Amino acid sequence: MQPVRGPLASEPQTVLVPRFCASLMEMKLPGQEEFEASSAPRNIPSGELDSNPGPGTSPSPDGPSDTESKELGVRKDPLLFIQLNELLGWPQALEWRETGRWVLFEEKLEVAAGRWSAPHVPTLALPSLQKLRSLLAEGLVLLDCPAQSLLELVEQVTRVESLSPELRGQLQALLLQRPQHYNQTTGTRPCWGSTHPRKASDNEEAPLREQYQNPLRQKLPPGAEAGTVLAGELGFLAQPLGAFVRLRDPVVLGSLTEVSLPSRFFCLLLGPPMLGKGYHEMGRAAAVLLSDPQFQWSVRRASNLHDLLAALDAFLEEVTVLPRGRWDPTARIPPPKCLPSQHKRLPSQQREIRGPSGPRLTSAEDRHRHGLHAPSQELQRTGRLFGGLIQDVRRKAPWYPSDFLDALHLQCFSAVLYIYLATVTNAITFGGLLGDATDGAQGVLESFLGTAVAGAAFCLMAGQPLTILSSTGPVLVFERLLFSFSRDYSLDYLPFRLWVGIWVATFCLVLVATEASVLVRYFTRFTEEGFCALISLIFIYDAVGKMLNLTHTYPIQKPGSSTYGCLCQYPGPGGNDSQWIRTRPKDRDDIVSMVRKGLSDFSSVLAILLGCGLDAFLGLATPKLMVPREFKPTLPGRGWLVSPFGTNPWWWSVAAALPALLLSILIFMDQQITAVILNRVEYRLQKGAGFHLDLFCVAVLMLLTSVLGLPWYVSATVISLAHMDSLRRESRACAPGELPNFLGIREQRLTGLVVFILTGASIFLAPVLKFIPMPVLYGIFLYMGVAALSSIQFTKRVKLLLMPAKHQPDLLLLRHVPLTRVHLFTAIQLVCLGLLWIIKSTPAAIIFPLMLLGLVGVRKALERVFSPQELLWLDELMPEEERSIPEKGLEPEHSFSGSDSEDSELMYQPKAPEINISVN
Amino acid sequence: MQPVRGPLASEPQTVLVPRFCASLMEMKLPGQEEFEASSAPRNIPSGELDSNPGPGTSPSPDGPSDTESKELGVRKDPLLFIQLNELLGWPQALEWRETGRWVLFEEKLEVAAGRWSAPHVPTLALPSLQKLRSLLAEGLVLLDCPAQSLLELVEQVTRVESLSPELRGQLQALLLQRPQHYNQTTGTRPCWGSTHPRKASDNEEAPLREQYQNPLRQKLPPGAEAGTVLAGELGFLAQPLGAFVRLRDPVVLGSLTEVSLPSRFFCLLLGPPMLGKGYHEMGRAAAVLLSDPQFQWSVRRASNLHDLLAALDAFLEEVTVLPRGRWDPTARIPPPKCLPSQHKRLPSQQREIRGPSGPRLTSAEDRHRHGLHAPSQELQRTGRLFGGLIQDVRRKAPWYPSDFLDALHLQCFSAVLYIYLATVTNAITFGGLLGDATDGAQGVLESFLGTAVAGAAFCLMAGQPLTILSSTGPVLVFERLLFSFSRDYSLDYLPFRLWVGIWVATFCLVLVATEASVLVRYFTRFTEEGFCALISLIFIYDAVGKMLNLTHTYPIQKPGSSTYGCLCQYPGPGGNDSQWIRTRPKDRDDIVSMVRKGLSDFSSVLAILLGCGLDAFLGLATPKLMVPREFKPTLPGRGWLVSPFGTNPWWWSVAAALPALLLSILIFMDQQITAVILNRVEYRLQKGAGFHLDLFCVAVLMLLTSVLGLPWYVSATVISLAHMDSLRRESRACAPGELPNFLGIREQRLTGLVVFILTGASIFLAPVLKFIPMPVLYGIFLYMGVAALSSIQFTKRVKLLLMPAKHQPDLLLLRHVPLTRVHLFTAIQLVCLGLLWIIKSTPAAIIFPLMLLGLVGVRKALERVFSPQELLWLDELMPEEERSIPEKGLEPEHSFSGSDSEDSELMYQPKAPEINISVN
Repeated sequence: MQPVRGPLASEPQTVLVPRFCASLMEMKLPGQEEFEASSAPRNIPSGELDSNPGPGTSPSPDGPSDTESKELGVRKDPLLFIQLNELLGWPQALEWRETGRWVLFEEKLEVAAGRWSAPHVPTLALPSLQKLRSLLAEGLVLLDCPAQSLLELVEQVTRVESLSPELRGQLQALLLQRPQHYNQTTGTRPCWGSTHPRKASDNEEAPLREQYQNPLRQKLPPGAEAGTVLAGELGFLAQPLGAFVRLRDPVVLGSLTEVSLPSRFFCLLLGPPMLGKGYHEMGRAAAVLLSDPQFQWSVRRASNLHDLLAALDAFLEEVTVLPRGRWDPTARIPPPKCLPSQHKRLPSQQREIRGPSGPRLTSAEDRHRHGLHAPSQELQRTGRLFGGLIQDVRRKAPWYPSDFLDALHLQCFSAVLYIYLATVTNAITFGGLLGDATDGAQGVLESFLGTAVAGAAFCLMAGQPLTILSSTGPVLVFERLLFSFSRDYSLDYLPFRLWVGIWVATFCLVLVATEASVLVRYFTRFTEEGFCALISLIFIYDAVGKMLNLTHTYPIQKPGSSTYGCLCQYPGPGGNDSQWIRTRPKDRDDIVSMVRKGLSDFSSVLAILLGCGLDAFLGLATPKLMVPREFKPTLPGRGWLVSPFGTNPWWWSVAAALPALLLSILIFMDQQITAVILNRVEYRLQKGAGFHLDLFCVAVLMLLTSVLGLPWYVSATVISLAHMDSLRRESRACAPGELPNFLGIREQRLTGLVVFILTGASIFLAPVLKFIPMPVLYGIFLYMGVAALSSIQFTKRVKLLLMPAKHQPDLLLLRHVPLTRVHLFTAIQLVCLGLLWIIKSTPAAIIFPLMLLGLVGVRKALERVFSPQELLWLDELMPEEERSIPEKGLEPEHSFSGSDSEDSELMYQPKAPEINISVN
Repeated sequence: MQPVRGPLASEPQTVLVPRFCASLMEMKLPGQEEFEASSAPRNIPSGELDSNPGPGTSPSPDGPSDTESKELGVRKDPLLFIQLNELLGWPQALEWRETGRWVLFEEKLEVAAGRWSAPHVPTLALPSLQKLRSLLAEGLVLLDCPAQSLLELVEQVTRVESLSPELRGQLQALLLQRPQHYNQTTGTRPCWGSTHPRKASDNEEAPLREQYQNPLRQKLPPGAEAGTVLAGELGFLAQPLGAFVRLRDPVVLGSLTEVSLPSRFFCLLLGPPMLGKGYHEMGRAAAVLLSDPQFQWSVRRASNLHDLLAALDAFLEEVTVLPRGRWDPTARIPPPKCLPSQHKRLPSQQREIRGPSGPRLTSAEDRHRHGLHAPSQELQRTGRLFGGLIQDVRRKAPWYPSDFLDALHLQCFSAVLYIYLATVTNAITFGGLLGDATDGAQGVLESFLGTAVAGAAFCLMAGQPLTILSSTGPVLVFERLLFSFSRDYSLDYLPFRLWVGIWVATFCLVLVATEASVLVRYFTRFTEEGFCALISLIFIYDAVGKMLNLTHTYPIQKPGSSTYGCLCQYPGPGGNDSQWIRTRPKDRDDIVSMVRKGLSDFSSVLAILLGCGLDAFLGLATPKLMVPREFKPTLPGRGWLVSPFGTNPWWWSVAAALPALLLSILIFMDQQITAVILNRVEYRLQKGAGFHLDLFCVAVLMLLTSVLGLPWYVSATVISLAHMDSLRRESRACAPGELPNFLGIREQRLTGLVVFILTGASIFLAPVLKFIPMPVLYGIFLYMGVAALSSIQFTKRVKLLLMPAKHQPDLLLLRHVPLTRVHLFTAIQLVCLGLLWIIKSTPAAIIFPLMLLGLVGVRKALERVFSPQELLWLDELMPEEERSIPEKGLEPEHSFSGSDSEDSELMYQPKAPEINISVN
């Protein structure tokens, strides 16, 4: 290899781009062949670059998109750790010091404070990028350099013809000097404080040990590579010296980087002293460039200077510019919630997704990206009797072993405790209510037994085993109506109820056989949210109502009454507890380390224990969880099996079909709306849904519970959501500044099963459970209701009703739908909700199931009031609308909007679950 | 005027910059002469611009800095409202539509939603700026165009030689077409919804009326000017057409802008259809440029195209660049809390402030910018006996009339109510305590009377009439000690106390005469915060203690005790109330409109009324505010005047000098630390402080209260701060997105005076006050204590102790001081605070005053532990340190830090008050 003409030539106007060693140019990266054909001429004078972009300018490959495959996890480029070493102390005490580092975001060394800054979005000044560009254009670019050590690398980098041998020697010695890294492990002052810089000769072993002990190393995935930028002022240089090296084989370059990673990139930016912090900023610019995914992608595949500069220009084309007058450049922007997806940056791929004419919903993948509820494969009608059920069983069967193995995680233990308490509370509450409503035909013991048997059976058999069964509000209301009906006609209640159950099971089996569940595609967000809001309100209403009921037993004493002056009983800490639970999620950011995470997994359980402890400590006279002590039916004199006729005339068993029809509708709606909510794509369930199978299970359990005289069970929206939320999987934050991603739910059958086994066992756990005050349990109810209610879009829109436009958040739907239309939609939902609530609370409750069906009708009618675009933003489209949209097109809005390109990026962001209950 | 060669020439490479009409060039802006000499040649081919910057490139003037005078409010450039009108609907239905507007921040029209977006920081793409630059460079630039109407302007703009007469006519007609503005006043759908655009011929009067009714107009200051950018695709143009016009005299250009403002700038960017939203983005770029203060400043003074392009280049030099891979360009950045100050953007001025060698504290102005407590003119020793007092009186006297006139504001009424309740609570609490401590020598009546007399007298005479006097904790402790001492020696207490008072008054007068108050310069933030934390903790401790005491009277009933089963009394809503008050400030952002602001001014009063109402509604048996019903001294048998000797031997009157010495130190410290805190520069007090006068008043009142046997009074830190905070003046937000600025405090004597008159009158208001439950008043105490405690930097640092480094906020001091040093400083403060608390609570309390002095000594000793830089960040510098710094220099840190330039900007931001209590 011979010295090449380099950056120290005297006339900048005529400098040629340094030639690469011929041998270097012959070598190729594995897999680089496909780019050879389109690569530009290798050596181009820098002056020609601007006027002659050439075919190699475009950084995107012609072959299959590599970035796409990167997103899919195939052939992924290694993560790059970039470090900026600055040359400081000119002229007395030259030394290299690490002053910045980048993985996803920038961390800056606060020299005086001796600590790394918080990770933040890197910001650059434009001139530093321009200076860097011209320095690189005139400098040395070695791509696929075969150097195997720092010494070899330094020799190659300094082999520029204009450097005198003496200067070259000085420069080489300088480049081989060990840089000073801020050592994070030494907890006290930085090891190279401002007064006594450590000598390089102290201990040659120490830095290597430090490199390995660096906590940052644990955050980087295996296979990560390093890039180093060396920048600074060097007085003896007459001309700036720029070099960019891509190593053919990544090697650990001694203690150049603070973590011992194999280095792939090496960038040198030296020059005579200049005003300001020119080299520092240029070095930062080089580091930020290398940390940009698109530039990194390009420069890993660049075959010459031209490609490198084209990649830099492509970077510049895409930067966001903030004006100085409205933005303080020293402000540090915290890492955004989600990183911009890279899919839009490759033009070919982008066009493929968005389709030629612009409308949004063109493919299933597109729908998936939108996070909208998609009628998935599971909801395609097979056309055969029980075809859907058979498909469901076929789909779920292979997952069955993993449904138990996937439960082996500490989080599941916490989820069991939390959901168990909710379930027990539910069983007690609804059991008590049912007992009151049916004069003891149902009671707390039946409630416990039924919950345990039905729940456990469902968890073992169902399509969606995360579902928690419960005798929910609407079904309870129906049973009360049924009881008063049978009393009015002097019927024997339980036998009559048995026949209703038999008929319901029959109707449900018909629905399964005819694959009626595919109709859930008509349950749009409008229906889901209306139902969810109703159930949440019932939870809140019950919790508050129960608490207020306590004041009847322990009323507030007014002065002047006869017992005035006597001592006090405080109604218990339940309300405060739920308050406390509710404020936990705000602190989530503060709770990260493993201890912290572990604690937070149990936050709700801890809140319950704290409530119980406080109750016990103060010795409050609160009502406690009372569990029946004898295992026998609540109604005296009946056995566990209900007689088929009792004293009723036979024809009542036929007449029972009429109420059974209504109940079937109710159960179908209740079960399937919940199932639709639980199976939303946002939850990223891997094992698929089983709408038909779920309904089948409910039908079978309907029969079983009717025969045994136990309460009826369907999926409970709120508790099931809480169950799923307590099983969220999140990625552990890797790179500094990266937020954990929602990965999915721990889908398994075991937590539910254990919950219901525990519930069954609770019948015998009275001595332990009696320490749990009821107000604490009401607190859980209240919290679950509030959490479910506050997480739906409907609630956000209700808030908008009360908010002046100025203070409204920047919701995407507000960018696209006029406020009055949003308000109209919300008002209609509110009216529907009010009607449902009224009907539920009055004797007209018998037609409640029909009203639930009516919700779908109302939604259908809204198509006449709102345009498809508006419904797309406010709700989602029903199957027919969807099919009609591509023909009609959404053009009118877009041609004038001018905002389409701005939203599309946000549209593609991975959505977090819409309805969730954050307890952990 | 003749057509000039313009943008439609066929070969872009050889296009010349259009010549300006000779007549236009002869005209000058008033005051523009000074730039003539340095201006570059008027017509330069665009190709030469880059290689020949010329002397006119620098946008900053050589004369006195105009931006500086702008900051000082002199010769201010008018505010500019910029509007982007886009040409849409090509080719069928061409029309101009407003799609964006800028005052400080960008507001974007959400076309589909028919509303303006929230104001946000404008972001640009770099290519659009580059395209704009080349379009302007090749386009028509008219500076000081004499057009008087839109017609004249359009004629001039279209007078380019390459346009055929026919095209020119078409273009003129198009430019004269009335643009469609989104009319905000029509509450429902936008007046030009996506289906039925309003015809321009509808009603010619309507747009003018709309222009005047526009709510935006009320937000713009008088004298505001408009700039309009017209951009769009025009199919019949063969070449892009760019024009930039600065009008000589701003004129209202018909209905061109949505608000009827005289237009100063006009920018036209038209051309043949191109890919993407090129013209939209170019138009936005032009608008953002015009909205940038520095560009606006330059372009108002530009004399030719060269200056215009230089201003654009200067803008580009300063932009902040965010990489695409780490920042989503569609994200909208909300307006920052405070706009970057413009003073740094003019290099000459910047150098002047920061000084040649870099240390920070070089001038009084600089100190002021830092928001540090500065030893102001008031604390310069005169060297004459009572010199400081005389100066104080001279300084305050001219303000005396305004001290009453400035109180005429509704806010003062709210402040009176709030502070009155706090004062009465204070009087009752401390009165009760004092009564207990002195066996009735002092009582609630004395407390009320003393508070009223002393407080009102102080408000009438003092140097800082915002101060609220109170018999604070430390003085109370001292009086208790004095009482037990006199009992031990069988002394007649009140006569002994009279002599202590006489001595204290004498000592204080000596301190006034010798101008001892100048020593308060040694009270740094360390001392202030230590004292403030102590007082705040006393408040919290007392409030919580009082509440817990109530449980002695009304204990929690445990099951099993004899009275179990009886009915309940709830301890009252006090705790909940303060909770409610404390969460109010978070909602501040939501409360803006006048009704809302009015309500929020009374939030604390409303909270109190709500508490009283709830108490009355529930009929709770809470203790109420009890005011004595008879106007006579609490101690039976004594008159209002204390006899000088009583039964004491005469020499006790001399011996009283010893405790008086300690008390004098206590009162001096207590009074002056509070005065220092109240007079901090952050509060932007206009009428100056009066440290000597304040102390003089305290001395006189000491004498008076001793003679009358009333409690002793000094300034109360927490209540005075609450008083000041309730009198905050804030600017009403002007431009969209601008946050209200803290303008200062309503400095007047009336609120305090009225508070104390009311306090005096309260002696006779027992029938009304008996409805106020004490827990509500304790809530006020608790709130004031928590608010004062949570607003000091010390509290932030205590939180840092418990926080993992990852989650620590990006505080400036953490960028400059190692965490361990911060922790050490905090730990020392904590130890000092603990010692003070212990001493206050034990019999050693007699030396408490000395310990307060000791705080200053500890701070002095810290100079041996911490470097001046560290103390500068953690505390502030004492007078000697400050003087020594410029000689020593702060160089070592800065030469390596590399972070200096980043922080300096933040350093110059106007500081909000550090210690404050936000109730409104």
